[in-house]
Amino acid sequence: MCTKHKIGRTWEAFLVLLVYYTAWVSPFEFGFLVRPSGLLTITDNIVNAIFFVDIVLTFFVAYLDKTSYLIIDSKKEIATRYVTTWFLLDLISTIPSEFVRVILPNNLQSYGYVSMLRLWRLRRVSRFFARLEKDKNYSYFWTRCAKLVSVTLFVIHMAACIFYRLAAHYFNPTETWIGSVWEDFKTESLYSQYIKSLYWSITTMATVGYGDLHAVNPNEMTFDVMYMLFNLALTSYIIGNMTNLVVHAATRTRQFRDTIHAASSFAQRNRLPVRLQDQMIAHLTLKYRTDSEGLHQQEAIDSLPKAIRSSIANYLFYSLVDRVYLFRGVSNDLLFQLSTVKSKFVLPFADFTVVHFNRLTNHLNLLKVSEMKAEYFPPKEDVILQNEAPTDMYFLVSGVVEHIVHKNAIEHVVGEARTGDVVGEIGVLCYRPQLFTVRTKRLSQLLRLNRTAFLNLIQANVGDGTIIMNNVLQVARLDIFFFLVSF
Amino acid sequence: MCTKHKIGRTWEAFLVLLVYYTAWVSPFEFGFLVRPSGLLTITDNIVNAIFFVDIVLTFFVAYLDKTSYLIIDSKKEIATRYVTTWFLLDLISTIPSEFVRVILPNNLQSYGYVSMLRLWRLRRVSRFFARLEKDKNYSYFWTRCAKLVSVTLFVIHMAACIFYRLAAHYFNPTETWIGSVWEDFKTESLYSQYIKSLYWSITTMATVGYGDLHAVNPNEMTFDVMYMLFNLALTSYIIGNMTNLVVHAATRTRQFRDTIHAASSFAQRNRLPVRLQDQMIAHLTLKYRTDSEGLHQQEAIDSLPKAIRSSIANYLFYSLVDRVYLFRGVSNDLLFQLSTVKSKFVLPFADFTVVHFNRLTNHLNLLKVSEMKAEYFPPKEDVILQNEAPTDMYFLVSGVVEHIVHKNAIEHVVGEARTGDVVGEIGVLCYRPQLFTVRTKRLSQLLRLNRTAFLNLIQANVGDGTIIMNNVLQVARLDIFFFLVSF
Amino acid sequence: MCTKHKIGRTWEAFLVLLVYYTAWVSPFEFGFLVRPSGLLTITDNIVNAIFFVDIVLTFFVAYLDKTSYLIIDSKKEIATRYVTTWFLLDLISTIPSEFVRVILPNNLQSYGYVSMLRLWRLRRVSRFFARLEKDKNYSYFWTRCAKLVSVTLFVIHMAACIFYRLAAHYFNPTETWIGSVWEDFKTESLYSQYIKSLYWSITTMATVGYGDLHAVNPNEMTFDVMYMLFNLALTSYIIGNMTNLVVHAATRTRQFRDTIHAASSFAQRNRLPVRLQDQMIAHLTLKYRTDSEGLHQQEAIDSLPKAIRSSIANYLFYSLVDRVYLFRGVSNDLLFQLSTVKSKFVLPFADFTVVHFNRLTNHLNLLKVSEMKAEYFPPKEDVILQNEAPTDMYFLVSGVVEHIVHKNAIEHVVGEARTGDVVGEIGVLCYRPQLFTVRTKRLSQLLRLNRTAFLNLIQANVGDGTIIMNNVLQVARLDIFFFLVSF
Amino acid sequence: MCTKHKIGRTWEAFLVLLVYYTAWVSPFEFGFLVRPSGLLTITDNIVNAIFFVDIVLTFFVAYLDKTSYLIIDSKKEIATRYVTTWFLLDLISTIPSEFVRVILPNNLQSYGYVSMLRLWRLRRVSRFFARLEKDKNYSYFWTRCAKLVSVTLFVIHMAACIFYRLAAHYFNPTETWIGSVWEDFKTESLYSQYIKSLYWSITTMATVGYGDLHAVNPNEMTFDVMYMLFNLALTSYIIGNMTNLVVHAATRTRQFRDTIHAASSFAQRNRLPVRLQDQMIAHLTLKYRTDSEGLHQQEAIDSLPKAIRSSIANYLFYSLVDRVYLFRGVSNDLLFQLSTVKSKFVLPFADFTVVHFNRLTNHLNLLKVSEMKAEYFPPKEDVILQNEAPTDMYFLVSGVVEHIVHKNAIEHVVGEARTGDVVGEIGVLCYRPQLFTVRTKRLSQLLRLNRTAFLNLIQANVGDGTIIMNNVLQVARLDIFFFLVSF
Repeated sequence: MCTKHKIGRTWEAFLVLLVYYTAWVSPFEFGFLVRPSGLLTITDNIVNAIFFVDIVLTFFVAYLDKTSYLIIDSKKEIATRYVTTWFLLDLISTIPSEFVRVILPNNLQSYGYVSMLRLWRLRRVSRFFARLEKDKNYSYFWTRCAKLVSVTLFVIHMAACIFYRLAAHYFNPTETWIGSVWEDFKTESLYSQYIKSLYWSITTMATVGYGDLHAVNPNEMTFDVMYMLFNLALTSYIIGNMTNLVVHAATRTRQFRDTIHAASSFAQRNRLPVRLQDQMIAHLTLKYRTDSEGLHQQEAIDSLPKAIRSSIANYLFYSLVDRVYLFRGVSNDLLFQLSTVKSKFVLPFADFTVVHFNRLTNHLNLLKVSEMKAEYFPPKEDVILQNEAPTDMYFLVSGVVEHIVHKNAIEHVVGEARTGDVVGEIGVLCYRPQLFTVRTKRLSQLLRLNRTAFLNLIQANVGDGTIIMNNVLQVARLDIFFFLVSF
Repeated sequence: MCTKHKIGRTWEAFLVLLVYYTAWVSPFEFGFLVRPSGLLTITDNIVNAIFFVDIVLTFFVAYLDKTSYLIIDSKKEIATRYVTTWFLLDLISTIPSEFVRVILPNNLQSYGYVSMLRLWRLRRVSRFFARLEKDKNYSYFWTRCAKLVSVTLFVIHMAACIFYRLAAHYFNPTETWIGSVWEDFKTESLYSQYIKSLYWSITTMATVGYGDLHAVNPNEMTFDVMYMLFNLALTSYIIGNMTNLVVHAATRTRQFRDTIHAASSFAQRNRLPVRLQDQMIAHLTLKYRTDSEGLHQQEAIDSLPKAIRSSIANYLFYSLVDRVYLFRGVSNDLLFQLSTVKSKFVLPFADFTVVHFNRLTNHLNLLKVSEMKAEYFPPKEDVILQNEAPTDMYFLVSGVVEHIVHKNAIEHVVGEARTGDVVGEIGVLCYRPQLFTVRTKRLSQLLRLNRTAFLNLIQANVGDGTIIMNNVLQVARLDIFFFLVSF
Repeated sequence: MCTKHKIGRTWEAFLVLLVYYTAWVSPFEFGFLVRPSGLLTITDNIVNAIFFVDIVLTFFVAYLDKTSYLIIDSKKEIATRYVTTWFLLDLISTIPSEFVRVILPNNLQSYGYVSMLRLWRLRRVSRFFARLEKDKNYSYFWTRCAKLVSVTLFVIHMAACIFYRLAAHYFNPTETWIGSVWEDFKTESLYSQYIKSLYWSITTMATVGYGDLHAVNPNEMTFDVMYMLFNLALTSYIIGNMTNLVVHAATRTRQFRDTIHAASSFAQRNRLPVRLQDQMIAHLTLKYRTDSEGLHQQEAIDSLPKAIRSSIANYLFYSLVDRVYLFRGVSNDLLFQLSTVKSKFVLPFADFTVVHFNRLTNHLNLLKVSEMKAEYFPPKEDVILQNEAPTDMYFLVSGVVEHIVHKNAIEHVVGEARTGDVVGEIGVLCYRPQLFTVRTKRLSQLLRLNRTAFLNLIQANVGDGTIIMNNVLQVARLDIFFFLVSF
Repeated sequence: MCTKHKIGRTWEAFLVLLVYYTAWVSPFEFGFLVRPSGLLTITDNIVNAIFFVDIVLTFFVAYLDKTSYLIIDSKKEIATRYVTTWFLLDLISTIPSEFVRVILPNNLQSYGYVSMLRLWRLRRVSRFFARLEKDKNYSYFWTRCAKLVSVTLFVIHMAACIFYRLAAHYFNPTETWIGSVWEDFKTESLYSQYIKSLYWSITTMATVGYGDLHAVNPNEMTFDVMYMLFNLALTSYIIGNMTNLVVHAATRTRQFRDTIHAASSFAQRNRLPVRLQDQMIAHLTLKYRTDSEGLHQQEAIDSLPKAIRSSIANYLFYSLVDRVYLFRGVSNDLLFQLSTVKSKFVLPFADFTVVHFNRLTNHLNLLKVSEMKAEYFPPKEDVILQNEAPTDMYFLVSGVVEHIVHKNAIEHVVGEARTGDVVGEIGVLCYRPQLFTVRTKRLSQLLRLNRTAFLNLIQANVGDGTIIMNNVLQVARLDIFFFLVSF
């Protein structure tokens, strides 16, 4: 199935290449050639044949029904759908021009017009770009740009061909845009004719309008009027798209700037101490760097169903929680819940209060931000302050933090914690103000666990609660001992 | 009333067509014609007569008062309002030019100016487009485009007519923009004159400015200066509008891309297992497809009053809930509440906690998202994980899910649930970790019911609660039996 | 104080007018005049004198300190601030050019340059527009447009004057942009010279570039290069502003469209009954009409402090609540609290749960939306559904609603309520499912009171609670009697 | 380390200057010079040497690893990274052109091409601007503008040089864009040649296209076609950037306008008393002025970790709380918690309900807004209303407020509070409707303390609670005494 899918994609990309060829050659034949020449005829017919093969193939390829979101692979339904929609037009655009010349009397003229029928194939490119835009493997910016460039080049090329045809078929060659400047233009090389047409076409399209070449007879003026009107729309469309892309690209840097600017102006207005200012800026800068997807990531994860979120959390944090001394000996169930349930509290009344933002489009990060991911802290940043209310404890995913005690306005380093350790747990479990200030020594990654979420979990697993308290008391005793000794 | 309304709309659309005619013909008469010719005079007067009829009709049509939001149909009030506002200008713009020529001495000149008075009717088009923009039956994009194209064409046509008039009335014909190139321009056909004027007008408007035609005398320069200034504003306005439309049109695709990109970069950075990654991408892609209106839909529904929301929920979910074995034999009242009350909890203190976002403009989906609609799950996605906390149960609206038990790291499929079944209810009702992993077998649609909301409902209907528990126990017994047997 | 303020504003507006005069006349003198002519000299000196008066006045006008947000009126501080900032430049720009000519040797040349010094006054216009943009009495759209037009006109005029000066002072008059076309340009009328300069200036600025006039000598080319570069920036700036304005102006209509579109596509996909669809669309349309400020209004009110919000609520709803039979005989305190406290619950734990969004920029309407304002309901819309959970009661501010009972799938109208009545109160107070469906008969305005908020209030005022229950029971008895009789 | 850092920055800035020199001189040598002249060669080689020094230095400078966010300073890793990326290209771009001429046979031609290799250095400028954009010390607006101007100037200069080269190397000098107008262009001064090239380049780039100079031979046409296409993209990019900047710059003013407009239209529709209207407008205007960073500030602070937020709150409010009579004699711990814990409630169930918005991108100010900062109130604004529910008390940070009692619809001023006082505390602590209306006498700054947050704190510190109640009762007694006496 997957290989089929890949072949399908490659085939489609190959056809798009051929469409590009058609998009160039059809108007060219229409404008510059009076009869098909050797090589071009052969290529044209090969391309036509390939597209005919594609028509046949379409009858065998399943499609996605847009109402039921199901893949339809019944032959009959596929055929019905195709025949009632684009089949006829697809077929007509593959008729060889030689065949047409035989049928229609005025075969020279018709050559160009039959060529133009092939442009029907362009709808493939539009569909191709629509798919590419949604494909995460291609840059949105460059896909849009490629689309715009394709459209612009096609329009210019098309107009150049039509302009030349208008001049070549006018009864009085000297009263044409090209004949009034170069009288013998019909005897020049095809390249020279084409480059001049293209030059005037782009001069008009880009609104440069030197004036060395300009419409002379009413036919040309009429076409030129329509071309300029169309260009007005096209350039607006190009500018609109570019603005869209620029605004999108600039958003993240600008938000970072606004955040930093706001933080530092707040600090300056309130004359915060320099150390505090530095901590603020360092934290925000690190957040910007490590959080490269920022809000979108949170949104994306929040819009997933609970089971997937739980799987992710379990995958990310189970091994971490498993290593922590606090949970030595507790049941596997509790470990599973500890590493997953964090994003949802367990007690009935808690459920009300956790506001679920299922999809947070670029503006909000909630509660769950700190629950689903381990946040980075820059070096020398305070994680916990001595004496503050014990609302959270932290697991160290990586890095090193120090325990610091303030005694008579002097800071004493009384310990250190490393990857796999937990800090702030004594305050949380004994419900008393935090004993230590905890400060990072270097870049550290910490996972926050909220006291309430933790207590709820323990209440639902009483046996495990006892084990945890025992674990704590054993270590806490050492800690308190160490703490008392050090002064 | 409704038929009246329809006739009114058709009449208005018909008048707008006539305004388009006027918008073309008035400047044309002003610029190119010195005296009204046969056919044009007749058409003009017919159009004038129709607009006169409309003036009379206006006295009989009720209008909406913008302060009280009431329909006013009192003849007197309608007349007062109309006479004190636009009546006079409407009337003047229907005076036949023949009549004016009889009155005013210099009748040739006045012919053009009287014609221009008719342009007052243009305000109808502006009103017409303002209405169309708010009409859900017309595409916003194409309505705006049609408006911009109309304005642009009118401006070009208008300028072309004025330019010609300036040249035709200048004392020295060879010192005009057209006379300096074609000396005998006055003897050319009307079509030739018009196309040349139009050609220069659009050349200037589109800022191409070839220079083959250019202002020669001070009068032309003065008008051209004003025209170019006006065009600067007009092109800015066009570009502004196009940007607005492009940004709007691109928003949904871009949000999808950002979400997918964020999710997959998150997965890659944390090295999530491939199966989990696939589940994430599959879910987000399905959500994008099935949720074509996305956030706007939720907003729209959230901004409705409670009674309408309840009616909708009842209509959508009553028959589903009615079929579920859990609610066999319960009272009709409970069924009604089950299918409607979901969007609001019943216990007093619950009320506080449900944050009501009455109108969520394109950025938030709340709690209620999962309550008001049955969400789609792609095939092979986990809905419930074994051992997770029992916060929700799910009703199957369509599709098939499997019950899976993990035993020694091997998955055993122990059952299946189909449309109309309920999963996760034993965990929820007995308040114990979920017994099974529940995984979709194919595209399924599931309706989530929160444990707390459900318990509140049962507390308020004690009798029904007993019935439900009996229903559960009967089935649960079988399930547990089946579960024990299978190992 | 207020009169002073008004005079100040008028004086400022008058000065801005003079600045406009200066902005036109200074470059004109610089470009076209070799010596000041009679009338112009007089006007210039009068204007200079007025600006000198303004310099003197500035020493007597208090200003707002941007750090402390206090009005500073100490003479000394005003003088210090002015002298150390703009005083010198302001003074120099008022020196009469006659005086300069006496001092400087090359007085002819200097005439123009001294004129240019006056342009320093332009900073006033910038300040003036910055103030106007924040003034609610002026349209933002037109203020921005006026600013852009002023800037554009000034730039064109300025460039025209410089272009002419460059030509007039060039050693070889025939090798200038104007002299190469009209050799005797210096003998032409001032008007003709000016309009030609302006014409070329705008032709270049608008990027039309006919080419009938173009830079000839290196000096002109150099200036033209700079002018074109500047114009590139200016047109980008104009387009950026226009986009900003268009997007802003289109936001509301588009949000309405998106909402309506989402609602109707939801209705169609779920095949909701037509009556329900009509109710949805009618409600959303009415909401859009009556809610002309929409979200901004809610934001503005939410960002006010509690005391002001309470005053507003009391002013709006006291008289309404006072008339309701339910509150006959209750204390004034309760009435005050009923009409104000609604935006905040009273019980301690309620406080937590009311999420306070102090400033909700264009995206959220919360809880309080339905509490602070009486919402409109279109005719034939359900307000309460029979049997639904009794979470709210409603006061009728205006309009008429019907009580409807569903019996055997037939609707019986059993009563009517009008302005000043209350509906749904029996369900709320007796805590039982609503007895009636309540449906509007015509456009009605209803004020919602949440059950919990109401109960909390009564708990805090026990005596009044008893009175209310008595009031209810008296009426309820009649109602129930009426209800039983009717079947 | 920091000094190193500074030197690094200065060195980088110096190199960017040299890149600017290169960006100008390389295309110039390519277009206009056939052989390097004296001074230019020397400068070129000095610049080359400096860049060679930089290559050497790069081997000694630590870099930031983008995966681990660590600074890498191992010599080997630095070398590996550099050699495998840009080293070769950097080296090639420093090869002196004299050296190349010796090696390659056709040394005249190669001179220009070797020059062009130097443009590889431009990537530094791009990196430089990317860094500047994120640096809070530089204005985002001007950085972006400088970048756009640099790019535009470079493109114009580059095109001018290529255009000249095309003309100078064409076999028939009279059939070139410059030779067809000035036949002897090769004998003109370098300045004259350069200004003419630049003039044509910008004329084309800005789409002015006078037409006095235009492409003549196919080579020129081909290049011109590509140049115009590129310019289409470039101007779109410039306009897109400008729109981005304008929209960003206008956001704040527009939000203020929308807020004011909404508030006043609300007031007018509901016919609020003038005094209330004035209070509303005054408050919103003051908020706009004092809150210059507005929402971004709140976001920035909310995205900081709890410890930093606590430090800030402690720094800002400890001294204030310490002075208040209410807290005379209470423990230091309580004071610390009072001044910090405000942003988080302490009781377990409170934790659920405080919705944490960790990052609030420009749309929301929550709960914590009023907790983390002292808000400004304009003069004569009501802070507390007599009889309203006692939900908050306020500390005066600065300014003066009055206590007012309403008795028989007359207002009696019964007291005053100043910096360091607290108002509304009796209502809050005794849980009864507020006794006084509190109104500001002049611009005041007040810090709000929520009743619930306060009660929770006291419950956790029972001893301190008693002290506080004693403090209150002492003062309250006086107050009540004063209150009774005054009537």
